[in-house]
Amino acid sequence: MRESVYIKHLRAVQKPSKGVLKGIGDDAAVVRGPKGLCILTTTALLEGTHFRLQDTGPWELGRKAVAASLSDIAAMGCRATTALVSVAFRRSTPMRFAKQLARGINDTAAKYGVTVVGGNTASGRGPLFITVTVLGDTDGLRPILRSGARPGDAIMVTGELGGSILGRHLRFEPRLEEAVYLNRNFRLHSMIDISDGLSLDLGHILEDSGVGAVLYEEQIPVSRAAYRLARRTGKTPLRHALSDGEDYELLFTLSKPQAEMLLKKNPLKVPATMIGHIRKEKGLFLKDKYGKLRRIRPEGYEHL
Amino acid sequence: MRESVYIKHLRAVQKPSKGVLKGIGDDAAVVRGPKGLCILTTTALLEGTHFRLQDTGPWELGRKAVAASLSDIAAMGCRATTALVSVAFRRSTPMRFAKQLARGINDTAAKYGVTVVGGNTASGRGPLFITVTVLGDTDGLRPILRSGARPGDAIMVTGELGGSILGRHLRFEPRLEEAVYLNRNFRLHSMIDISDGLSLDLGHILEDSGVGAVLYEEQIPVSRAAYRLARRTGKTPLRHALSDGEDYELLFTLSKPQAEMLLKKNPLKVPATMIGHIRKEKGLFLKDKYGKLRRIRPEGYEHL
Repeated sequence: MRESVYIKHLRAVQKPSKGVLKGIGDDAAVVRGPKGLCILTTTALLEGTHFRLQDTGPWELGRKAVAASLSDIAAMGCRATTALVSVAFRRSTPMRFAKQLARGINDTAAKYGVTVVGGNTASGRGPLFITVTVLGDTDGLRPILRSGARPGDAIMVTGELGGSILGRHLRFEPRLEEAVYLNRNFRLHSMIDISDGLSLDLGHILEDSGVGAVLYEEQIPVSRAAYRLARRTGKTPLRHALSDGEDYELLFTLSKPQAEMLLKKNPLKVPATMIGHIRKEKGLFLKDKYGKLRRIRPEGYEHL
Repeated sequence: MRESVYIKHLRAVQKPSKGVLKGIGDDAAVVRGPKGLCILTTTALLEGTHFRLQDTGPWELGRKAVAASLSDIAAMGCRATTALVSVAFRRSTPMRFAKQLARGINDTAAKYGVTVVGGNTASGRGPLFITVTVLGDTDGLRPILRSGARPGDAIMVTGELGGSILGRHLRFEPRLEEAVYLNRNFRLHSMIDISDGLSLDLGHILEDSGVGAVLYEEQIPVSRAAYRLARRTGKTPLRHALSDGEDYELLFTLSKPQAEMLLKKNPLKVPATMIGHIRKEKGLFLKDKYGKLRRIRPEGYEHL
């Protein structure tokens, strides 16, 4: 079964509902509560698919499950408040492992002001499966969707990209504080977190907004890890920055004047870089230092 | 690893948080939102532990995952609004199965006015694992906890109990409408849904309220399925009604006068029966038709 096909099916059969401002198909859902908006998202980590126990300790695993969900809330420009956790253990899982997993979950939630209010555990034959659902709060702000990018927008990204598999995929910081700051102080048009890879996640913005984009090859902030990884893989560091998943940085678009104001103020703890612009003509293009455009195909880690 | 021990650990390490009115350890969590209360719960169904694919079709499985979560919201006396679903498929799961599962989920959610707003899918080596998280709304009502039972309360239950494995475990109706009606029109002191078995779930109320109870053997509404099952198992039908899980009926306590008013009005679509009373002295007792008390031990399906 191909998951991307399945998700398309789910989106297609989804019925509109007046309380639901944004359903399946963004980083998180936006739901009208009795007197405000709720943001909801869920992350699933499956042993053998998303992690292997020989590479990832239980505390790190708990941390990652929570941090990935928080990153989805950040991608909406909102604040995270509450989490629910479900875990399917193997019957053979030792209690010590389960307790350390819980500690990873609780420590990470606490660090970002989030309370774990409930969940479920089950034990079975299978691989470990962890799902974390996080509830967020708009605090009166407008949630930032993938679908709002406009021709002429600057494309910006926080931090550096690529090579996260060398360690950052377990140590990344969800950009909650930065996202809320940006949403409060700038008029963001669209935003997503880079979980699948820059080109693939930008592709989601382009598709949902019905636009295209040009990325400036020279401006993409390639991480040192991408250079290190490139020596092993034979790919270029740029290619890693474009297609590696799990950077969990914010990718967002806003008008050029707003972007310039952001660059001038530089108020975030992590640098933000202008890496391209949105245009009306569809397709994703890379501009090299000579100004030559080359069409690229979104690539990265396809999960959902 | 014993899950009940693990959950005790999770409750013990849980830190109090001012926005959280009720965390781990009730049917659902109660969280203070910006301008109201949110109810949150999550259900997990693991193949091989909670169901077997040879007994349960994909539509029924989707139905059950949603309905069990809705029953938890009902147990709080609240309304369900929104659901998120995560599924770990086997890599070999056919698309047809996945689509029917989604249809079971969506049909059931729609029937109870709930919108599926998002989720996650993954494919792996393991057994099927489905988690459903449901968000509910108090509509200005007070959520009913397990911890409010008072000595002198009548103990009441909706519907009939026992033998659900013969079919009802896949066809049960979450008592959402009844629960909200009861919460709106009666002063309920405590409530839970019977997922693990009458005696075990009543045991949760007794433990959390610090009280004991007497059940009237003659009054317990034993279902026809319990009689049918008893013929096979050699246990008594009463024993099945006391200990079989997955009836998903409401078990609640309220003052005797309130209970009598409810019996007189009989306003619910499903009958409600007074089956015992709460008393100060701890322990769970069964009173036979001669008035003789016999101490019983809570038993049932221990999952969490």
